[in-house]
This record gives sequence, C-alpha cells and structure tokens, in this order.
Amino acid sequence: MSEADGRSPDSPLVGVDLGGTNIRAMVFGQGMKVLGKREAPTRAEEGAENVISRMAGCVRAALGMAGIEPAAVAGVGVGAAGLTDWKTGTVLLASNLGWRDVHLAERLSRELGGARVAVDKDTNAAALAEARLGAGRSFRHFLYVTAGTGIGGGLVLNGDLYRGATGGAGDIGHTVVDPDGPPCGCGSHGCVEVFSSGGGIVNRAKALLSSGRMGTEGSLLKGEEVTAEAVFDAASKGDAVAEGVVRRAGTLLGLALANYVNLNNPEAVVLGGGLLRGGERYLQPVESEMRSRALPALGEIVRLVPPELGDDVGPIGAALLAGEAEWQ
Amino acid sequence: MSEADGRSPDSPLVGVDLGGTNIRAMVFGQGMKVLGKREAPTRAEEGAENVISRMAGCVRAALGMAGIEPAAVAGVGVGAAGLTDWKTGTVLLASNLGWRDVHLAERLSRELGGARVAVDKDTNAAALAEARLGAGRSFRHFLYVTAGTGIGGGLVLNGDLYRGATGGAGDIGHTVVDPDGPPCGCGSHGCVEVFSSGGGIVNRAKALLSSGRMGTEGSLLKGEEVTAEAVFDAASKGDAVAEGVVRRAGTLLGLALANYVNLNNPEAVVLGGGLLRGGERYLQPVESEMRSRALPALGEIVRLVPPELGDDVGPIGAALLAGEAEWQ
Repeated sequence: MSEADGRSPDSPLVGVDLGGTNIRAMVFGQGMKVLGKREAPTRAEEGAENVISRMAGCVRAALGMAGIEPAAVAGVGVGAAGLTDWKTGTVLLASNLGWRDVHLAERLSRELGGARVAVDKDTNAAALAEARLGAGRSFRHFLYVTAGTGIGGGLVLNGDLYRGATGGAGDIGHTVVDPDGPPCGCGSHGCVEVFSSGGGIVNRAKALLSSGRMGTEGSLLKGEEVTAEAVFDAASKGDAVAEGVVRRAGTLLGLALANYVNLNNPEAVVLGGGLLRGGERYLQPVESEMRSRALPALGEIVRLVPPELGDDVGPIGAALLAGEAEWQ
Repeated sequence: MSEADGRSPDSPLVGVDLGGTNIRAMVFGQGMKVLGKREAPTRAEEGAENVISRMAGCVRAALGMAGIEPAAVAGVGVGAAGLTDWKTGTVLLASNLGWRDVHLAERLSRELGGARVAVDKDTNAAALAEARLGAGRSFRHFLYVTAGTGIGGGLVLNGDLYRGATGGAGDIGHTVVDPDGPPCGCGSHGCVEVFSSGGGIVNRAKALLSSGRMGTEGSLLKGEEVTAEAVFDAASKGDAVAEGVVRRAGTLLGLALANYVNLNNPEAVVLGGGLLRGGERYLQPVESEMRSRALPALGEIVRLVPPELGDDVGPIGAALLAGEAEWQ
C-alpha cells in the first residue's frame, strides 16, 4: 500500500452486508470505530446492476456521513449471502439474490471510482468478525455456525479464515445427518438444514399437526400460523409436540457438530443465528448430542459458545475482510 | 539446528511405523534415499517399556546397516496407531497397543542417547508422505483416508498437516452416517467405520447370512469363513449378497466423504488401505455417492485418487515428520 495514493494502513475501512432483504454499509475508523452507516432494501428482483448501484449508493452515503472521500478508503469488503470466489470477488451462486457468476468486486469497484473491493460469503465475514473482535478471540480453531432460516458456517483454523480449495469451506448446513432423510434444496437429502433450521422446524411441526397423530390434537400449535417463533413459544409453555420438534432439531444439529468435531478437532463452536431465541430448549440437545457423539478426547475439550457481536456482525466482518485482504 | 552437534539439515532421518502387529524402522539419506531398514513384531502384550526398547533396537539395527551413528541423525519420527499429542510426543490412547498416556518421544529419545524424537498418529505420517512425495504433491488441500480393518484419516490444508486443537483432526472413520446405526467401539453409533471398514463388511455379510433372508441361501459366502477378502471375491464372481454388502459399504463411505467435502472443500481425497482390493466395485459407489451428495460446486471439482506410496508410506511419513518438526 503506497502513501502516494492517499491511503495508509490507518485509512478507514468500509464493510457491506449484502443480504436477500437488506444492504447495510458501515464505515469504520481506527479501532473499528463506527464513523457512518446506511441501509437500503436489496430489491433483488430489480437485477444485479441495480442492486450493485444501490450498494454503491449506501457506501457513498455512509462515507458522506463520516465526511470521508471514497478515494481515502483503504478498502471495501462485502459479505454476500451466497457461494463466492473470494480470489476473483465473484458471487458464483446466490439463490436469495437470483445471482449466478456476478463479478461483484469489479463492478462495485467501478461504481466507487476504483476502490479496492473484497468479496466473500457472509458467514466468512461473520466468522472473521467473531475471531478478531468477538467470541472467537480466545480460540485459534473454531467453527462459526449461524442457524436461522437456513444453516451456514465459516471456519477459523490456525487463527485465520480457512476457505478450502474454492471458497466453499464451512457449509455445515449441507452435511447429511440422515441418509434416508427428506430432499434438501441443495440437491442432496437428509442435510442438517432440512431438520434443524427455522424452515426445518416449521416443516416438521406442520407435518406432525397434519398427521393428526396422538397428542397433536391438543397442541397449542393447532390452528395457529406455524412459525419457528410460534414453535419455540409453544415449547416454552410445555406443549409436548413443540418440545419434541425443538429437541429433534437441536439433536440433529448436535450430530452434525459432532461430525465436525471429529473431522477438524476445534476448540470451540460459536453458534449464532435466529434459532438462539429457542434458548436452552434448543441449545441443550445441541450440546449434549455434540459431546456424546464426538470422540471423547475431542468432545470433552470443545466449547459451545454464543457469538458476542450483535446485528452489525456482517458489516464489521466485511470491513475486516477488506482490512486483511491481500490486494493484487 | 547447530553444526556443533554434528547434525546438519542433510543429516539422515529415521522413520518408525509403530503398528499393533509390527514395528518398522527405516533410515533415509538425502532425497529420501533408503539407507537401512529393520522390522520386528510389536508384541504389545509385553508392555510399553519392552515395545519401546524393541523400537530402539530396530532403529539402532537400521542405522547399523547404514553405518550411521545415532548421534549423527537429524531426527527420529514415529507414526503411531492411536491418538497422539504431537506437541509433547505422547501417545494418549492406542487401543491396539493397550497404551494410555505413554510419553513415547521422551522415552524413545532416552533409549537412543538423546536423539530428537517426533511422534504423531500414523495417518498423519501417511498423509504427509503422500503430500510431499506421493499422490498429494499436486494438491494443497486434501483428505487422506485409509480404509482397512478400521477407517482413519489425516488432513493436509494449505499444503501442511492440519492437526486441529489437540492433534485429533481427520478422524473421518468416526463421523456418523446413520443416526440410528449400530454401536461403534468409539462410544457413538452409526459411525462410517461400522459400515464401511473391513470389519463392517464382515459383520454385515454375517448378519445377512444368518438372517437367512431371500437370496442368502444360494450365496457363495454360505458356509465359508467370512473375511472382507472373501466378500470381495464373491462379489467379483457376481454373488448378489456380496455385491450388495460391498456397494453399501462404498456408498456410506461416499456419504461421509461428501460431508467432508462440504465442510472443508478439498481438491482431492486420497483413498488408500486394504479395501482398495475391492476395486471398482467398492470405489465406484464411494465416488458416485461423494459427488452426488456434495454441493454441486464442491463435488464437481474434488478428485478421488489412490495413494502413490506403497508399504513404506508409514516409515517415510514418520521420517518426514521428523524432518519438518520444529524442535524445541
């Protein structure tokens, strides 16, 4: 990084979280102090060109708020909800966005007057944020998992993001926990996402209710709109059907984590996402299955911890991606 | 490494493979040229002290054959069949040997007049050997798997062994492929080792034969001593029962590999071990299940390749461990 171009290692970093619903841009100064932020709806249906323009608009607005010129920025990082090639800054496949092979880094850079742009999947951004500033600070080897509508993850090995051969490492949501399980959107079947995500919980509850099996008649869920939230609520009120659904979801996620523990022998699993709202009722079976199924020596030492960063984890992690990128 | 102690980076390396049945020691010169070798039965029932003495005897004999003084050796590496702590050179648990918390590096070093001794699990030694001199040379990210009596593995990530937090990484044999599967020696149940190892193949064939189900009456295996070899033989002669057993073993190993692919996104899986004798009948379902169950972008690029090093992979890898060890 030369001084001549007006950037220094202390120059501000920009982090952008690109989700299926919202774009969030934040500007960070020294010590990751927040200098500006701007949010906008993604409106993926308007196409990649418009979404990328809107991303650039958010970045410019956040920079404007901070009184910073785009040329003074050290780098812009983007965490995108999808499979990405971080080496070329391409979003290979993002079903939420309807994107395939979008050269996001190149196009966003052009919109921002040549700014350096790093792109990675959003779960890697979050894993990096937790590694540097959150629950992962004291671990050199951990798996970051987010369990919400879907289940995704990112790996930190030897203190750094591990992306694998082509950027796809960490996809714990699509590891199989039941070889004869129902189909998954990924093309396989019996993936843990089918059972243990918000969607999986809802599907399981609906299937049980419509089966009319013993016990479901009196369930609090009967006649209600079934959401993961509603299932957690009913479970907290002692509804046996809902409790069973939550326990099974947690147990199968614990099994997937046990497989991870035996493969990569981590110090910790940082488990975040919307399903944490399920509380101990969800977490207890996750932890107990993870420990009892992993090899004793590996299961005993692994810790299950919640993330420490809140809603800004996406933009924070994206900015850190830019800060640690090896610019060509 | 100082010159004063008579060792230089070109000094010979010694590699020892410590198995449940045999001890094999080899001495390597520049370019990993074999200068000497010696083998002896392990006789684990005589206790760790005697086994370690016998290991030292093998090393001295192999060095004698090469005309090399123990003091001139750069380092001695040991690949041990068990869970090891490579940082302290301790064998934590080796059921084949009946060992628990044996300070192998320290004790073998004492027997060898203070030689530097590095200890790791045998599958890590083999993975390193394939990485440096075998099938893994062209890959920076691969999983080494050995499928024989049991199933074990070792990880090479970013071109180096990845051991995880406590040295246990790579234990693909104890990842679960069927949550309701039969008990495994590890304490869990439904591990891929239960289904896809030599022992798993034998158990499945025996269970089918004793069930007397349709088709088993006319099986070539009926009345024979059931070994993995016999099952492969019968399958190659078109025996439907044996073919089914082999196919199922291969399919479930492929499922475990697909889970690995989605977690660590490797370039390759190097699959070795005695079960390779099953040939395409075993390998074809492994590969097809691995590819069809992995995420398309990750399954398409991964290669399934056989190891390139033969029977000496253990001592070669152990010597490389010593060569790459960071001596305290």
